[in-house]
Amino acid sequence: MFNIALFGAGRIGQVHSVNITNHKETCLYSVVDPHQKSAELLAQKYQAKIQTIEQAMSDPKIDGVLIASATDTHANLIELAAKHRKKIFCEKPVHLDIERVRHCLETVEQYQIPLFVGFNRRYDPQFRRVKTLFDAGTIGKAESLLITSRDPSPPSVEYVKVSGGMFRDMTIHDFDMARFIIGEEPYSIYAQGSNLVDPAIGQVGDIDTAFIVMKFPSGAIAAITNSRRSGYGYDQRIELHGEKGLLSAGNIKENSVELWENSGCLTAKPEHFFLQRYREAYIAEWDHFVDVMADRAIPECSGSDGEQALYLADKALESLHSGKEVRL
Amino acid sequence: MFNIALFGAGRIGQVHSVNITNHKETCLYSVVDPHQKSAELLAQKYQAKIQTIEQAMSDPKIDGVLIASATDTHANLIELAAKHRKKIFCEKPVHLDIERVRHCLETVEQYQIPLFVGFNRRYDPQFRRVKTLFDAGTIGKAESLLITSRDPSPPSVEYVKVSGGMFRDMTIHDFDMARFIIGEEPYSIYAQGSNLVDPAIGQVGDIDTAFIVMKFPSGAIAAITNSRRSGYGYDQRIELHGEKGLLSAGNIKENSVELWENSGCLTAKPEHFFLQRYREAYIAEWDHFVDVMADRAIPECSGSDGEQALYLADKALESLHSGKEVRL
Amino acid sequence: MFNIALFGAGRIGQVHSVNITNHKETCLYSVVDPHQKSAELLAQKYQAKIQTIEQAMSDPKIDGVLIASATDTHANLIELAAKHRKKIFCEKPVHLDIERVRHCLETVEQYQIPLFVGFNRRYDPQFRRVKTLFDAGTIGKAESLLITSRDPSPPSVEYVKVSGGMFRDMTIHDFDMARFIIGEEPYSIYAQGSNLVDPAIGQVGDIDTAFIVMKFPSGAIAAITNSRRSGYGYDQRIELHGEKGLLSAGNIKENSVELWENSGCLTAKPEHFFLQRYREAYIAEWDHFVDVMADRAIPECSGSDGEQALYLADKALESLHSGKEVRL
Amino acid sequence: MFNIALFGAGRIGQVHSVNITNHKETCLYSVVDPHQKSAELLAQKYQAKIQTIEQAMSDPKIDGVLIASATDTHANLIELAAKHRKKIFCEKPVHLDIERVRHCLETVEQYQIPLFVGFNRRYDPQFRRVKTLFDAGTIGKAESLLITSRDPSPPSVEYVKVSGGMFRDMTIHDFDMARFIIGEEPYSIYAQGSNLVDPAIGQVGDIDTAFIVMKFPSGAIAAITNSRRSGYGYDQRIELHGEKGLLSAGNIKENSVELWENSGCLTAKPEHFFLQRYREAYIAEWDHFVDVMADRAIPECSGSDGEQALYLADKALESLHSGKEVRL
Repeated sequence: MFNIALFGAGRIGQVHSVNITNHKETCLYSVVDPHQKSAELLAQKYQAKIQTIEQAMSDPKIDGVLIASATDTHANLIELAAKHRKKIFCEKPVHLDIERVRHCLETVEQYQIPLFVGFNRRYDPQFRRVKTLFDAGTIGKAESLLITSRDPSPPSVEYVKVSGGMFRDMTIHDFDMARFIIGEEPYSIYAQGSNLVDPAIGQVGDIDTAFIVMKFPSGAIAAITNSRRSGYGYDQRIELHGEKGLLSAGNIKENSVELWENSGCLTAKPEHFFLQRYREAYIAEWDHFVDVMADRAIPECSGSDGEQALYLADKALESLHSGKEVRL
Repeated sequence: MFNIALFGAGRIGQVHSVNITNHKETCLYSVVDPHQKSAELLAQKYQAKIQTIEQAMSDPKIDGVLIASATDTHANLIELAAKHRKKIFCEKPVHLDIERVRHCLETVEQYQIPLFVGFNRRYDPQFRRVKTLFDAGTIGKAESLLITSRDPSPPSVEYVKVSGGMFRDMTIHDFDMARFIIGEEPYSIYAQGSNLVDPAIGQVGDIDTAFIVMKFPSGAIAAITNSRRSGYGYDQRIELHGEKGLLSAGNIKENSVELWENSGCLTAKPEHFFLQRYREAYIAEWDHFVDVMADRAIPECSGSDGEQALYLADKALESLHSGKEVRL
Repeated sequence: MFNIALFGAGRIGQVHSVNITNHKETCLYSVVDPHQKSAELLAQKYQAKIQTIEQAMSDPKIDGVLIASATDTHANLIELAAKHRKKIFCEKPVHLDIERVRHCLETVEQYQIPLFVGFNRRYDPQFRRVKTLFDAGTIGKAESLLITSRDPSPPSVEYVKVSGGMFRDMTIHDFDMARFIIGEEPYSIYAQGSNLVDPAIGQVGDIDTAFIVMKFPSGAIAAITNSRRSGYGYDQRIELHGEKGLLSAGNIKENSVELWENSGCLTAKPEHFFLQRYREAYIAEWDHFVDVMADRAIPECSGSDGEQALYLADKALESLHSGKEVRL
Repeated sequence: MFNIALFGAGRIGQVHSVNITNHKETCLYSVVDPHQKSAELLAQKYQAKIQTIEQAMSDPKIDGVLIASATDTHANLIELAAKHRKKIFCEKPVHLDIERVRHCLETVEQYQIPLFVGFNRRYDPQFRRVKTLFDAGTIGKAESLLITSRDPSPPSVEYVKVSGGMFRDMTIHDFDMARFIIGEEPYSIYAQGSNLVDPAIGQVGDIDTAFIVMKFPSGAIAAITNSRRSGYGYDQRIELHGEKGLLSAGNIKENSVELWENSGCLTAKPEHFFLQRYREAYIAEWDHFVDVMADRAIPECSGSDGEQALYLADKALESLHSGKEVRL
C-alpha cells in the first residue's frame, strides 16, 4: 500500500482523492492546502491527516505526492518532492515559464525520481483506442489529424489573466494529444486566433477561438480547433485520417435517449465538462502512476512531455503574433 | 420499346408515369381514367393518348398495362388484360375479397400471362440489402424479425371505410415483407389492436394501432407493429435477428444536418411518406417489370404473393376478433 | 451509517458490496454465504464480518439486509428478516412459485417492514429518462411499447433447469419494465416462443426466443422480444410510441470510436452484459434503498411488483402452451 | 422552352444532359464535342443535333449554353457565347490563369450577359440547409468553420499535370464554400500541404494532402482539410460553430443498413463520388439557371465568385511555398 500526500484540495484534487482511495494499492495519507477549510473537508472524508508542505515532504511514511495545487506552485513542489525522494504525479503544467520548467526537470533528473505529468486525455478510453488501433496498423500511415476541443463556457477573466493564455492553458492538452497520436515531434507550427466569445478576454490580451496547424517530419499534418465556449457541452473529438481509412473518437453523450417528433429527432448533448468526460481517464492515469510507484512501469507521460507541449504553446503564440509559420 | 397503357392517373399513377417515361425500354402510350381532367393532364405532359378501357385493351400496339386505378377495379382489369394478352403490372391489392382474388388468378393462369403485383417495399434498396445479406448467410438462420410501419398521419374516414380495414390496406405490405424476408409461409398468426389515433376510425369498426405475431415452420417468429400516425414522418424499419447477429434497415432521414445546442442535438425526421421514401423502390420495381415484359425474368412478386398477403390479413382480423392465435 | 448484512457473495453480491461500501451512509457489516471461500474473500476485502444466517438476523447492529443468495432461499430470508425487523433489499425474484411469493409478502405485510425488490432496470438512467419524459407529457398518451432484451450468449443448461424458465428468469425484467413505463396493469397477454439457440434448452422444456404481446386498459399495447443469445453483446432497448412522437432508449456502446474504411464504418458493440450495462442502475437502486432505510422514501419497487411480474410470467407460459391470448 | 447547346459530352456533360432533358422548361438542342463519338452518343440518346462551335454560337434557336468542355476552352467559349448573346452556364473554373479570368469577365460584363459558374456544392441540400439555418440566426454569429473534402481515390498523374494543382482543381470548391457559408471575403490565408498519397503527384510538383486556414473580417476563422484519397468513399462534410451552437452536414451513406455482430456494428460508406453525392445538387443548380434564363433570378454564383475562388487558390499556393500567412 502506497501512502500519498495530496497537494491541493480543490476541484481536481477532490477527483484524485476518490481515485487514490478506491485504488487497492494506494491510500490518501495526507492533504496539504493553504486553504484550511478545503483541506479539513477532504481529510475528514477520507480519514487522512492534514499536513504542511514541510511535514509531508519529510514524512518517511509518504511514498508519492499528487500535486494538484495552484499552477505557480507546481515546479517548487516537484523539486521539493524530488529532493525528498517522493515519486511525483503532477497536474499539467509544470510551470507556465519554459525556462523554469527546464530547470525543474534538471532537478528531477539529478535525483532520478519518476515524474508523471497528468495529461489525462491520453488515458481517455476513446482516444487511447484510436492510438492503439492506429499503432496496430489499422489505417496505415497517418496523414492528417484533427483535434476538436471546445469548452462548454468561458472561464472568468480573473482565471484567464493568470492562465498563461489559451494556448498554455487549454490548447496544451491538444498539443500533447497531437504528439501522442502521431508519435513524432512537429517541425512547423502556425496559429490563427480570434476574440469572439467574451470581449473581456480580448481586453486582457487573450483569444478564445483558434485554429493551429502543425506539420510533422513524416509529412503528416495536424490541426487543432479550439473555442472557450461551445453552447452544447464539452466538445472533445479526434479524427485521424490515414492511408487506408479514418479513425475517429466522438463525443460521449449524456444519455442514449432519442425523442422523435414533428420537429425532428432530439438527442442528448455531450457530457458537460472534463469532470464527467474524463472520469475514466482520471482513474486510468492513476492506475498507471501506481504501476510507476511499484516499479512496474516508467512514466508514459513525463516531464519532457510537459516541456514539449509548453514549447509548442509558446511557439503557437509567436506564430499568432507574427502571422508566420514558425519552424521548430 | 414497350408501349404501356396506364389505368389510373391519380397520385400513384403519376409516380409510375415518370418512371415509365424515364425507362429507356418503355413509353407511356396511353392513359385511362374515368376522371377526364386527370387523364388529360397526364396525357398531355407525356404526349400520350387518352383511351377508354376497351380501346386500350384492344389496341394491338400496347404491350403492357399498369393498373393503378381504384382498388375495386383491379381484378376486372387484370382479367380483361389477361384475355387481351397484355402483360400486367397491378398495384396491390388484387382485390379485397380473397375469393375474387382467387378467381381472378385462375383467369390469369388460364391465359398464361405474367402478372406482377406491386409490393413496392421489396424493391426498397435498404430492405433488399437486408434480404441479400441474409440470403448470403451473413447472420445465419433467421430467429426473429421485427417490422415497424407507421404512417405520418391517419387517412380520412372516407378512405378507411373503403380500405378493407388496416390489415388489408396497410399491414398487407408488412405481411408481404415478412414472407419476403423469412422466405417461408407462416403457420400461425396472432393480432392485437386498438383504436387510439382517431375515434372516427373506431366508429367505422377499424383499428389504427396493432401488433401482429407470426410463427414460421423453421421456428422463426416475426412481429409487425403498425400505427396510422407517427407524429414524426413515415417510420419504416425492419430488424432481422439471426444466429450470428442482427441486420437492420433504418429510416432515411430528410437530410444529414445536425444542430447542436443547449437543448441537445437535433436531426431531421424520416422522409415524409411513401412517395419520398420509396421513390427508388418504384423505379426498381418498374425495372423488374420491364425485364418480365422482355422475357428476361418472371415476376418476383406474383398474383399468389398478393393472394397470400391478403390471406394473412384476413386471418389477422380473425385473430383480432377471436382473441386467439389462428393456425394457417 | 446503516450496517448491512449481505446474503450471497457471488457475482451480483460482489457488485452490491462495492456500492454498499462506496455509499456514504452504508457500511458492509457482514457477509453470509454457505460457500465459505466466497464469503471470506469478500469479508476480507471490505473488513466485514462473516456470519451465519442466524447470527446476522439476530445481530442488533444490523439495520438492513441485502439478499443476493440463491433464488430458492429468497422467500425464507425475507421472512426471517421481516421477523427480525431488518429492512430488506432482495434481488428478483422473491420466489419462482407465486403462492410462495404471496405467503411471503403477507409475512412482510404483517411485520410492516419495507421490502425493496431489485428490478435494477428501472434505475437505468436511460430507461428512467424515457419514463420521466413520458410522464412529463412529452409524447402524450402511450400507444405502443417495444422492449428488446437479448442476452449476449445462452446460459448453461444446468442454470436453465433451475431458472423457472425463460419467462420467469429473463422476461420477468421486461414484464416489470412494461408495467413501469406504461403505468397500468395489462389485461391480456399472448406469448409465442421457439427453441432456436441451443437444442439442449429445448430438451429441458424451455424456449430461448420469444415475442410477448400485452394489452392495457388504456388501449396501449406492449410487445417484448427476447433471445438468450444476440451474437453482438447485451441488447437492451425500449421504444415508446405515443400520440405526439416516439421516445427510445438505445444501447450503450462499448466506446465511441469509429473506423471508416473500404468495407464501411465499424463501431463498437453494445456493452457486454448486465454488470457493465447496469453499473449505474445498481448504484442508483442502492441510493433509493438507503432513502428507504432512512425513512426518506417508501420502496418504489415493492414485493407486489415482484408478485405481479411473476404472475405475468406464469400467464405468458400459459398462453405459450395453449396458443391463446390469456385474460388477466 | 429554352433550347440549350451543350459543350462537352464527357462525364459531367452527360449528367447535365439528363437534367436539361428532365427540366420542363429546357430542351437539349445540340451537342458540341471535338470527340465525334461522344457527341453522337449523347445526341442520339436525346434526339439532339450535333453542331460545331460556330454553328451553335450563331444558331438563333439556341437560348443558352452549358459549357462542360475541357477547362482550357471555358474562357474562349464564354466570350463567344457572350458575343452571341447566349446565356451562360459554365462548369468551374473559368480558367486556371486569373488574368485570363478577369479579361473574360470584362467581356461578359461588356455584353451584359448573365454568367453562372457551376459551384455545384452550393446546391447540395445538406450544405444549403446549413447556410439557411445559419442565415436564420439559429447559431448566432459564425466563429469557426471546418470543411472536410476528401476524394475516394487520387486522379491520374496526367490529370494532375493539367489540373492547375490541387488548390485550383479541388480546393477551389472549398474556397467557394467557405465564402458562401461565412458570407464574407477572407483577409488572410495560410496553407500547409504534403505529398503522401501518390509519389507521382509529388514528382509533378503537386500535393495531395492539405490544411488551409483563412481569417475573415468578423473574426471568424475557416479551415479546410483536403485529401486526394480517403479509402472510404467521398468524404464531404462541413461543420459551422457559432455563438449559440453548431451546425453540421454529414456524409450521405450508401444505405441505411446496419450489421451487428461480434466484431461490432458495420454500416455503409459515404456515397462513392461526386456523381452520386451531388446528384441532387446538379438538378438544383440547373433549376436556378433556368430561373436566370427566364429572368426570374440573377446568377447566385457568378463570374466574380469564380474569380475570387481562383484568387484564394493562387494565394494558398503562395502561402504553401513561402511558409507565411498571406494577406489578401
